[in-house]
Amino acid sequence: MTQRIAAIVEYDGTGYAGWQSQAQAASIQDAVQAALSFVAGHAVVAICAGRTDRGVHAVGQVIHFDTSAARSPRAWVLGANSKLSAAIALQWAGAVDAGFHSRHRATARVYRYIVLNRSERSALQNARVAWIHRPLDAGRMHEAAQALIGEHDFSAFRSVECQSKTPRRRVESIQVHRSGDHLLFDFTANAYLHHMVRNIVGTLIEAQDDADPKARLAAILAGRDRRRAGYTAPPSGLYLWRVIYPPAFGIPSAPAGLLLK
Amino acid sequence: MTQRIAAIVEYDGTGYAGWQSQAQAASIQDAVQAALSFVAGHAVVAICAGRTDRGVHAVGQVIHFDTSAARSPRAWVLGANSKLSAAIALQWAGAVDAGFHSRHRATARVYRYIVLNRSERSALQNARVAWIHRPLDAGRMHEAAQALIGEHDFSAFRSVECQSKTPRRRVESIQVHRSGDHLLFDFTANAYLHHMVRNIVGTLIEAQDDADPKARLAAILAGRDRRRAGYTAPPSGLYLWRVIYPPAFGIPSAPAGLLLK
Repeated sequence: MTQRIAAIVEYDGTGYAGWQSQAQAASIQDAVQAALSFVAGHAVVAICAGRTDRGVHAVGQVIHFDTSAARSPRAWVLGANSKLSAAIALQWAGAVDAGFHSRHRATARVYRYIVLNRSERSALQNARVAWIHRPLDAGRMHEAAQALIGEHDFSAFRSVECQSKTPRRRVESIQVHRSGDHLLFDFTANAYLHHMVRNIVGTLIEAQDDADPKARLAAILAGRDRRRAGYTAPPSGLYLWRVIYPPAFGIPSAPAGLLLK
Repeated sequence: MTQRIAAIVEYDGTGYAGWQSQAQAASIQDAVQAALSFVAGHAVVAICAGRTDRGVHAVGQVIHFDTSAARSPRAWVLGANSKLSAAIALQWAGAVDAGFHSRHRATARVYRYIVLNRSERSALQNARVAWIHRPLDAGRMHEAAQALIGEHDFSAFRSVECQSKTPRRRVESIQVHRSGDHLLFDFTANAYLHHMVRNIVGTLIEAQDDADPKARLAAILAGRDRRRAGYTAPPSGLYLWRVIYPPAFGIPSAPAGLLLK
């Protein structure tokens, strides 16, 4: 009998070519599938909620897979973690209804972008944050970001490699705030175009010195022209933080276990 | 003319054999000296406040060196950081009185030990914490640790490789508290024996289940026998947090830039 299992995966994306399986490079998907296949005793295909890019991290990636093996939730987590590298770790697993699908059933995805904003680079936070030494103003960027809330054509923030059929997305919230030396950019949206979060962060950082950053963001959004927006912020600062589903599926909120003073 | 310079160094000790220069392995000291020698244009010898072991990190290691080169504080920091690996970064530099000495003039050293205390290991905190899955009680360990405050013979917590002439040290404070999934052990002492912090942490973790953990710690301390104390907690959780000097030397407090939710 086949059973569908969901799991939450944390990873340090630094050494990986992203989630998606590839012929030429180490991917998170290949590593997770190999570990789950070992536990299952048969080949497992893992589907994720959000295909993170090269160097992007996850605190709460959600996956699902189908298996004929009867294993306890604890056996999936401990067994897979014993086979995975130190950079990847399952945080939870559980049997779910056959109607669950990590990508199609997600109602929202939360990404966090972290900037270390101080004059010297950090050794201990290397590859876990983006470092910007010139002083940034969280309040001005927060205000500017409010121009993007709602359902819009986000072509201005879309990578040329994006394969989505439509450029429309619904952004529920963007919160920018400071915590000590860190700037935190929290995004909640139904889904994202390729590089959309990193392009918005880069644009907010460039626009913060404008007389009216919010008007600039509104104009860039309305222009739907990638060339008018800012640079693509580096992947080291980006985390897939958590994925939200209808409560009936019983997927827990990921433990927000990240270090950040 | 020779000038004495002090600097604060942050590092991720994971890939290094510790502070001390060694013939056979990569050390923090060798890396820092090579970078400073490049900036100075002559060979530089760096003396540190606390010789951290293999795999131990530093937020605020303090060093000093003598140089005939005239460089601004900013040039020392930016120049050295441009030559150092991503795992090491100067945070501050400044000219100091010739009477300053990073080791001899330190009045206290603050170490922090971080335990991640949850059921699953963390991918993102790998090598930055010690992971213990069974639930630990910060309050009981804090209480037990108070048996160690003051000046004592700490032979019970001394590694067999310790080369100190005396086993006496003065512990000013040990604070154990919980912050979410993290247990933080903060030590302030004039100095430490080899492995002393890690041996105390291991002993506190073992003693917390005792009927009277404080009495157990007091008995272990009084016994001065390493075999009665607990295990040596792993280096991944240990940070040289900051070093304290008489204010007249003008050494700033290290920016407590470490990650921790």
